Amino acid sequence: MSLHSKISLAIHGGAGTILRSTMTPELQAQYENGLQDALDIGYHILEKGGSSLDAVEASVRSLEDFPLFNAGRGSVFNHEGKHEMDAAIMDGRTNAAGALCSVSGIRNAVSLARAIMERSEHVLLSGRGAEVFAKEQGLQFEDDAYFFTPSRYQQLQEAIAEGRVQLDHTPDDKSEKKFGTVGAVALDAAGNLAAATSTGGMTNKRWGRIGDSPIPGAGTWADNNTCAVSCTGHGEYFIRAVVGHDIHCLMAYKGLSLQEACDILVFDKLQKAGGEGGLIAVDKDGNIAMPFNSEGMYRACRNSEGLNEVLIYKA
Amino acid sequence: MSLHSKISLAIHGGAGTILRSTMTPELQAQYENGLQDALDIGYHILEKGGSSLDAVEASVRSLEDFPLFNAGRGSVFNHEGKHEMDAAIMDGRTNAAGALCSVSGIRNAVSLARAIMERSEHVLLSGRGAEVFAKEQGLQFEDDAYFFTPSRYQQLQEAIAEGRVQLDHTPDDKSEKKFGTVGAVALDAAGNLAAATSTGGMTNKRWGRIGDSPIPGAGTWADNNTCAVSCTGHGEYFIRAVVGHDIHCLMAYKGLSLQEACDILVFDKLQKAGGEGGLIAVDKDGNIAMPFNSEGMYRACRNSEGLNEVLIYKA
Repeated sequence: MSLHSKISLAIHGGAGTILRSTMTPELQAQYENGLQDALDIGYHILEKGGSSLDAVEASVRSLEDFPLFNAGRGSVFNHEGKHEMDAAIMDGRTNAAGALCSVSGIRNAVSLARAIMERSEHVLLSGRGAEVFAKEQGLQFEDDAYFFTPSRYQQLQEAIAEGRVQLDHTPDDKSEKKFGTVGAVALDAAGNLAAATSTGGMTNKRWGRIGDSPIPGAGTWADNNTCAVSCTGHGEYFIRAVVGHDIHCLMAYKGLSLQEACDILVFDKLQKAGGEGGLIAVDKDGNIAMPFNSEGMYRACRNSEGLNEVLIYKA
Repeated sequence: MSLHSKISLAIHGGAGTILRSTMTPELQAQYENGLQDALDIGYHILEKGGSSLDAVEASVRSLEDFPLFNAGRGSVFNHEGKHEMDAAIMDGRTNAAGALCSVSGIRNAVSLARAIMERSEHVLLSGRGAEVFAKEQGLQFEDDAYFFTPSRYQQLQEAIAEGRVQLDHTPDDKSEKKFGTVGAVALDAAGNLAAATSTGGMTNKRWGRIGDSPIPGAGTWADNNTCAVSCTGHGEYFIRAVVGHDIHCLMAYKGLSLQEACDILVFDKLQKAGGEGGLIAVDKDGNIAMPFNSEGMYRACRNSEGLNEVLIYKA
C-alpha cells in the first residue's frame, strides 16, 4: 500500500443563522474550543497512521459529547419531548455504509452506525429495532438526564407554543434558523476516504421525520475515487438533491474539481431550490472544501501541510 | 404546455429466482393477470391525458392490492410477525418526493407517500409517527387479517426455524431468493416523468431494517431532464450504489442513453458488488429499460406506439 504524503480532516457542527451580533465572546470561545478538540482528536489518529474511519468516528464522538452541538448530548427535543438521533458512516474503499434513524438513548450514534456497517448485513436500521441491535452489540446508552439541556427544553416549549417545527432554534431571534448536525470527513495516509454525520434532528419534529444525515448519498458519502462529504442543512432539500452523490458524480463523470462540484451544489442547485445549509468535503488528494449558503457554519479543518483553522462566520 | 406524442408506462412486481421449473401454468397466469391489470389501470390514466404521478400511484396501488406481490396485501412478515411497509413517490418536474418507512397497517403505502410529498413539509417519515400523519390525512388502514396470507406466514415460520433473514422466500427451494417490491415509472403526454415504489420488506427482518425502496435517489428517482427509475433487489447494495440517481447522472453528465446507463448499473456496478436485482426505467423521450441480473423479474410495459408486454423470465 503506497502512502500518501497528505492527510486531511474537516469537521462541522452545523450551519444556519449564526451572527456575530448575537454571539458573546465567551460562547464563541466555547464553540471554538469544542471544534478544536474534536478536530485534534481525529487528526492525531491520522497523524499516527490511523484510518480515516477511526478519525471521523472519533471526531464525531467528540462533537456528540459536546453539549452545544445538536447531536448526542445536547440533541434537541422532538414533539413528544424525546431525543431521536440519526447518524451515518461511510467507507470510501468499498462504499460500505452504516446508518440509523429515530434512535433514542444512544450515547454515540456514530459508533452505532459503524457497528451496523461492520457487524450487520444491513445499511440502515431504524427506531426500537436499531436500539435492540445496539444493545446486542454493547453500545453505550444513557438515560434522559444525560441528554437534557435546559436551553433545548426551552426551545421545545417555545416551538410548541408557536406551533412551529424548527431546525435548531436560537432563542434570541425567532427568525433565526440553525441546522444542528455534526460531521467529519477525512483522508488518511493510506489514501482512504471516510465520512460520518450525526444529528438530533429538528426541535418539535413530529411524525418520525428523517432528514438527510443518515442517508448514504444524501447527507453522507465517501468514495476513494472522488471525495468524502458530510452535509448540514435543511434536510428535505439535501435528500432531493442527493447532495453527496451528486458531488461524486460531478467529479467522476464531468471531471470537476472538489471545489467546483461543491460550489455547484451549495450555491447553485441547493440555493435555487431554497435549500439552506452547507457541507464539508475532502477529495482523494486531500483538498478540502467547506461551502455554505447560510449565514454561518461551525467548521474546522487541519492537514499535514500546516493548515489548522476553526471558523464560524463567512470568511 | 407542448404535448409529447408518446406516453409510456412500465411496472414491476419484484425480481429474483423465478424459474419456469417451479411455476405452474395457473400461478403464472395469476401473476400475468395481476401485472396486466396494474399496467392497464395506470395506462388508461395516461391515455386520457392524466399525469404520470396519478398513473404510477394507480398502478402501484393495484400491485399493492394484489396478494401475490410483496407490498400492501401480501406483504411478508417481519421477525415480530408484523407487516412493515416502505414506499416512495417522486415527481420529475421538481424532484419533489414523499416516502415512508416501517409503517404498519396502511392499505396503500404509495398513497401515503404521495400525501407526505404534497401535504407535509417533509420527504421521509417513519414508524408510528408516519402512522399518526396518515390517520390525520385520512389514509385507509386495514387490520392484520387483511394483510395475512398463509404462504407468507409459513415463510416466516420457516425463516425463524432456520435463523434466516430472507428477502422474499419461495418455499419450494431454500436457495431461491426473491426481492419482493413493486413499482411503476411513467412519462405522460405533458412530458412529465414520475416514479413510485412500494414494498413489505424482508421476511423475518429485524432491527427496523430499511431498504432502498423509500430512499429518493436509491430505489426511487424521477427527473424530467433524464429519467424515472424504480428498483427491486437486494436493497443494501442498491442504497450504496445510489442506483436511481447514478442512472440520472450517467445520462445528465456523461450523455449516456437510458439503456446504456441502466445496463452499467445492473450488469456492471451492482453485479460486481454482488447486488442482485433489477429495475424499470423510462426516459424523457418515452424509451423503456427493464434490466435485471437475477433469474427473473415480474415486469410489464406499454406505450402509445403499440408496445404492450407482460414478462417474467429472461427474454
